[in-house]
Order: sequence, then structure tokens, then C-alpha cells
Amino acid sequence: MVNRIKDFDELCLKAVEKAKQHEPLKLALACADDPYGLSALCKAADMKLIVPILVGDTAEIERIASEHNIDISPFEIVEEKQPHRAAAEAANMVASGQVELLMKGKVGAIEFLQAALHSSVGLKKDKRLWSHIGIYWPQWLSRFIMITDGGVVIDPDLETIPHIISNAVQVAGVLGIEQPRVALLAAVETVYPSMPVAMGGAVISKMADRGQIKNALVDGPLSLDVALSPDAAREKKVTGDVAGRADILVVNKIEVGNTLCKSVFIFGRARSAGLVVGARQPIIMSSRSESADAKVNSIALAVLLAER
Amino acid sequence: MVNRIKDFDELCLKAVEKAKQHEPLKLALACADDPYGLSALCKAADMKLIVPILVGDTAEIERIASEHNIDISPFEIVEEKQPHRAAAEAANMVASGQVELLMKGKVGAIEFLQAALHSSVGLKKDKRLWSHIGIYWPQWLSRFIMITDGGVVIDPDLETIPHIISNAVQVAGVLGIEQPRVALLAAVETVYPSMPVAMGGAVISKMADRGQIKNALVDGPLSLDVALSPDAAREKKVTGDVAGRADILVVNKIEVGNTLCKSVFIFGRARSAGLVVGARQPIIMSSRSESADAKVNSIALAVLLAER
Repeated sequence: MVNRIKDFDELCLKAVEKAKQHEPLKLALACADDPYGLSALCKAADMKLIVPILVGDTAEIERIASEHNIDISPFEIVEEKQPHRAAAEAANMVASGQVELLMKGKVGAIEFLQAALHSSVGLKKDKRLWSHIGIYWPQWLSRFIMITDGGVVIDPDLETIPHIISNAVQVAGVLGIEQPRVALLAAVETVYPSMPVAMGGAVISKMADRGQIKNALVDGPLSLDVALSPDAAREKKVTGDVAGRADILVVNKIEVGNTLCKSVFIFGRARSAGLVVGARQPIIMSSRSESADAKVNSIALAVLLAER
Repeated sequence: MVNRIKDFDELCLKAVEKAKQHEPLKLALACADDPYGLSALCKAADMKLIVPILVGDTAEIERIASEHNIDISPFEIVEEKQPHRAAAEAANMVASGQVELLMKGKVGAIEFLQAALHSSVGLKKDKRLWSHIGIYWPQWLSRFIMITDGGVVIDPDLETIPHIISNAVQVAGVLGIEQPRVALLAAVETVYPSMPVAMGGAVISKMADRGQIKNALVDGPLSLDVALSPDAAREKKVTGDVAGRADILVVNKIEVGNTLCKSVFIFGRARSAGLVVGARQPIIMSSRSESADAKVNSIALAVLLAER
């Protein structure tokens, strides 16, 4: 029986403990002219979680660091002025084994992922799907919830969603959540044949019932209130293992996931982390508008997930 | 120059002022065995906003009222045991002019709307589209935002979205928001031809530039953080009239709108209201899991929007 990790503070402590047992992992920050990214790296380096390497436009990186009073003098910088080339260079450093972890800096998610996916065959892990997982600890809920996919897979079909779930279940394991409760989100709980999302929820739940999705309790369609609030589940008379207690929220379109992730951190003032999972090593990718705290949390989670 | 309404308290005061000038409107609650709905009606009746009529299973309505200590003795009850027939009966009472306002009680949104749409030709207003608008006042933002459509139109196309926007602009007018700023939500700000939502955002913005959408400033694609947060807009270098200041958030799929609405009230602890607009009179339809406060706010807004 694994203990559930209580919150992001405990997560960071666990990562520090794990990092002590090995050589620290090297982390390449792609497009490092990013104040939140740089201050997160400083903190993570102080915690001895990782050794940072900054990839990007040296002059701009130094300007940003000085503007925000961030001391980057101990860090190696790899010069690459063009953002897409900086992203590709950072990805290649991971693919070639020169560094272990890849992190997105001040570059759009799509540009960053294209660089990572196209430039670095070495980052691929068998045929695993890459998917984004947002991890949140909203104040009113006082526990972790995970949202997937709001950052990588644009329009997953019914073959793809089970892979997205498997990736999230792996991350849940690191949080100490065995048999996570997975809600397939929709606007309704009733299965209306006219609503493809509701139909998809029904199909995927039944796949899980038949053992086609492992190590998770899966149910859907569920709307957000019923997935998270025991009161709403009771009010709408929805029963089952997941209603009111979901750990993982799975969406069927990137717009739903992206909007929900941002809504949780904007409206819920939630502490957060964000990773892309399914590559040889986890890729650290939280939104550019998320805080340094979110980026430190993401690094800690990546350290716990990383293979040695 | 109309003054912006500050918050829901001011909205309710305005509605009370308006109600004083006329005979109070009669409101039919469809499937009235709904504790939140009944306590909202009591409060709204005390405020002299409306005169309630309860439609549904009398025994069940009386049981729920007594269980929750709600005094419904002054209200008329129209007996109709079956939920879909109660919804149809309530809609017919509006269609025939017997009452002015229709409100959803303890019945699913789709069942309720089917009854309203199919049973009551008299509720139709020309060929106007019916759409759902969620109105929120999240604490961190300290102003109104509106989300549409998370409750009626499942999968609007590019012909439909301008009508959804027009309906929301009408509600914004009642809140004193002239020329509301309308964000077409997506997961990105860049127009990627591979993402239909981003393409749609570009098309609709240009329609607005050409004067095809009136009385609003429209921009998209915008992701949620850039739409609402001036910091995120600055960080991501997105300019224009809407970024960081959106009043109305428009989504392209009911799942996005529904999840976002629920996220704002769950995570943002937002005060809220919910209406369907486009019928001859506004229809009061907030989620069953929303509070009595939300339902009173919705009634107040409906009173301000209602035609006499």
C-alpha cells in the first residue's frame, strides 16, 4: 500500500529525497528568456533537484535574468537565437543522452512540441502516445486532481483515449494514488446518442469494465460537478466508483482540457504542475502564464517519474 | 451612457425596482420537487419579484418543502406527476400567456428544453436561436463574466455562433455593459489551420470587423488566460480590444461551455445566474447543483430582460 502524497510541498520533499540518492539530473530549458522558468530553475537547483542548462538567446536570457534579479551565473548557457532551433537543440540534448530532462521556456506549446517530436527520434519511447497532464491542488478540494489532455492531443478518438488514460494513471501512481478514479467528462450524465462525447464516455467505461484499461476505475459520461462534488452526484442521483470522487478528468477535445486547466488555476487559485508523458523521459510543460511555483512542482514531479 | 451594474446584489435591487412598477410577473417552476428551486422562489416572492406557480407531483413537492422547512402554502400548485409532462405543462402555460416566465426545476436540461421547444410553439420568437448564457461574478475578478453556450446548442457552426453572440450581447446590455468585449475561446492564440476552433475564431472575428456582428468588440482565437488576465495577455504579447478584458466568453462546443461554467462556480466559488435567451421571454435555467442564490439571481435577471 503506497501512501498518497498530501500536497505539492510533500511532493517536492519526496523529489528532493530521491534526487539525493543519485547524481542530479541535467535539465535543458528550451527558450530560457523566461523569467518564471529561470526563477523556477534557480529554486530547483537550490533544492538540488536538477542541474539546469539554459538554451536560447544568451543576451536576451542575461537581460531577463538581470531585469528580474535572478542569478544565473552558475548555469551553463547554450546559444541558439531562433526559438524553434533552441527548442530543437534542447530536445536533441535529451535525445542524445547529454541531459535527462526537457522543459519548455518562453515558446508556444505547439512550436515546442513540434521541435521535440520532429527533431528527436531519440525521445520517442516505443510507440507510446505523448499526452499532456495538468496536476492541480485546488484550495476548496484539498486534494490532487489531474486533467488530460489540454496541451498535446487535439482531437483524440476512442482508440487514443485509453492511451491518454494510461499515461495519467502512471502519473497518479507517483502521487501515491493506486486505482485512480477516472471521469470521462461531458456536459451530461445521460447517454444521449446525439452527443458524441456522451457516447464516447459510455464506450470507454465499458472498455474499462472489460479489462481493456488497467489499474483504474473509469466512468463516464459525467459532467464536472458530478465528477468532483459528492453533493452534486447525490443531487443528480449518479452512483458508481467515480462520481463525486474523481482523481483524473479526461476530456475529448483539447479546447475542453485547456480551458478547464486554465480555469482551475485562474479561478481556483490552485497550485499546479504540468507534464507531457509518454516520451522516454517526462517533459516539463506548464503554461507560460503559470507561476514559478507551478514550474518547480512540475520539475519535482518529473524527477520522481524520470527513469535512470 | 448606461451605468454598469456592480454585482448581483445591485442586479437584484434593480429588478425589485422594476417589478414595483408593474403587476408582478407569474413564474411557472417545472418539476417543482426541487429544494433549491423552491427556496429561491420563496425568496423571489418575498422580494415581490414574481408570483410562483409550482408544476409537478404535488405530494412530492409538499414532502420536499416540509423536509427543507420551506413554506409553500401561499403558492398555487398545478398537478402533473410525470417530469416531461410537467415540463411541457409549464412551457404551455407560458406559451398561452397564462404566466410570463418559465423556470427549470428538478428535471434534466435536455428533457426540459425538449418539452419547452416542442410543446410550445408560442414560446418561439420569430426565428431566433435559443442559447444558454451563464453569468458569473468570480471573487478574484470582481466583475461579471458571461459564458455561452454551455447548455443548449450542442455543436454550433459558424452561421450559429453570431446568433449566440447576439443573445449574449442583449444580456450584457441589461448588466449595463455596452459594447461588450467578446472572446472566442480556443486552446491557442495563433491561428493554426489544423485546429478548427482557431480557424473559427479567426472567421468570426473578421465577421465582426466587417460589421456582421453588432454592438460588440469581438476577438479570437484566445485561450482563457489571455481572455481574462491582462498579465497573461502581456506575457503572451496578445493585443487588441478583448485580450485580458473579456466580458463574454464564447465556446464552440457545449462540453467546453458546460465544463467551464461548472468550473467557475466550483473552483471560483462564483455567484452566478443562468438563462436561456432567444425565446419570447427569458427561460430560467441554472444547473440543478447550483445554489438557491444562483436561482434568485437568474430570476432577477429574467425580470429585467422580460418583455411586458
